Amino acid sequence: MTVHLVGSGPGDPDLLTVRAARLLRNAEVVVHDRLAEPVLALASPTAARFDVGKHRGDSAYQAEINTLLIELGRTGLEVVRLKGGDPFVFGRGGEEALALSAAGVDWQVVPGVSSAISAPAAAGIPVTHRGVADAVTIVTGHRSKGHRTDWEALAATGATLVVLMGASERAEIARRLVAGGLAPSTPVAAVHDATLPTQRTVHTTLDGLADTSLASPVTLVIGPVAALDLTMTGTMTTVGA
Amino acid sequence: MTVHLVGSGPGDPDLLTVRAARLLRNAEVVVHDRLAEPVLALASPTAARFDVGKHRGDSAYQAEINTLLIELGRTGLEVVRLKGGDPFVFGRGGEEALALSAAGVDWQVVPGVSSAISAPAAAGIPVTHRGVADAVTIVTGHRSKGHRTDWEALAATGATLVVLMGASERAEIARRLVAGGLAPSTPVAAVHDATLPTQRTVHTTLDGLADTSLASPVTLVIGPVAALDLTMTGTMTTVGA
Repeated sequence: MTVHLVGSGPGDPDLLTVRAARLLRNAEVVVHDRLAEPVLALASPTAARFDVGKHRGDSAYQAEINTLLIELGRTGLEVVRLKGGDPFVFGRGGEEALALSAAGVDWQVVPGVSSAISAPAAAGIPVTHRGVADAVTIVTGHRSKGHRTDWEALAATGATLVVLMGASERAEIARRLVAGGLAPSTPVAAVHDATLPTQRTVHTTLDGLADTSLASPVTLVIGPVAALDLTMTGTMTTVGA
Repeated sequence: MTVHLVGSGPGDPDLLTVRAARLLRNAEVVVHDRLAEPVLALASPTAARFDVGKHRGDSAYQAEINTLLIELGRTGLEVVRLKGGDPFVFGRGGEEALALSAAGVDWQVVPGVSSAISAPAAAGIPVTHRGVADAVTIVTGHRSKGHRTDWEALAATGATLVVLMGASERAEIARRLVAGGLAPSTPVAAVHDATLPTQRTVHTTLDGLADTSLASPVTLVIGPVAALDLTMTGTMTTVGA
């Protein structure tokens, strides 16, 4: 009676962990987010699937997911709760773990490759780089009651900023970072569909971000490292490579 | 003629990515850091091994590693450069990529599960948690010429701080974070040998950190999430599990 909270990585099934791939192959039930869809092909065709990725960030819906996981956990079936990236980086894995614990259902977390680090890497951008960035901050652009990001304070740290789910709030984020002291010319890279064949990277600056067309899911990298171009000869894992 | 810059994850071989495990099995040469040692058993017994983990952070030695990778890349052998965690999170992977590019040697990065996120997870700590922490900053405690971390500014952001390689500088880090406004009672968790059978977690506070005995490698988690205890019933992947 264990629910496995499993990170699916950035998208490329080759970037699942060995353990995640094995759990997914053996799962009888898979409860997944939209971001985890690219790796679903690894699950058994006979596994039951629950797509719960439609209302991301909605607390009432999250309570329903928690209840679903508890009920599934109690069936004794092999349950995998599959989340894009890592379950404990804006994946609400902690909330699901607490709900399962409260209900007496055992759980196990399997960390995944976070999109916050691997999406920039897929675009040739190291989130830290000696002499350029000595720290990296991962933050969500998603605005909900629970989130009170102090963008002005983040602007003062010198850390690379990686913003997940930031497409819709990008104008406000850029405005507040500049208000906090970042130069309008600060480089920004937006990586869409990282590590998938449809991956696309757009380079802009903070003052150009509002007018840059972006499709979700997108990972924003803000800071001097966003102007690095390590891919001049290098390449990155993509599906089927 | 490709050098693979491969993240080995936090330690447990089961947390390698599928691609990393395959590359490691097929490698003819493995150049590894000390933190990558727990996964070396997956390499072929006939693979040549270079242990270059002795002088972490030394720039002259890093130049020697870069030269070694270039020379190995030119042999046409299957070369895996294996790094603990993720190559682009304080792994100097960016520097090695630039050196390889400059020498005309192709490279490919394979992101790994970062210890910055998975070590806390292994101790039951989500680095972000709704209503508790809306951002996480990853920083190195290692003091070298290239690093000029503004601890006071980081203290003001409200983000969870994850400090890699922070054992030796912990007194100074705690002092500066308190100077920057964090309460001396701010929870701190220190996770040693994360995801390995020897894993051990010590809980303390910022004002207790200097007097807390720590062994490297250790991941420090600083902030309210460090007091969360999701492992009351939950468990974490360990070697052999």
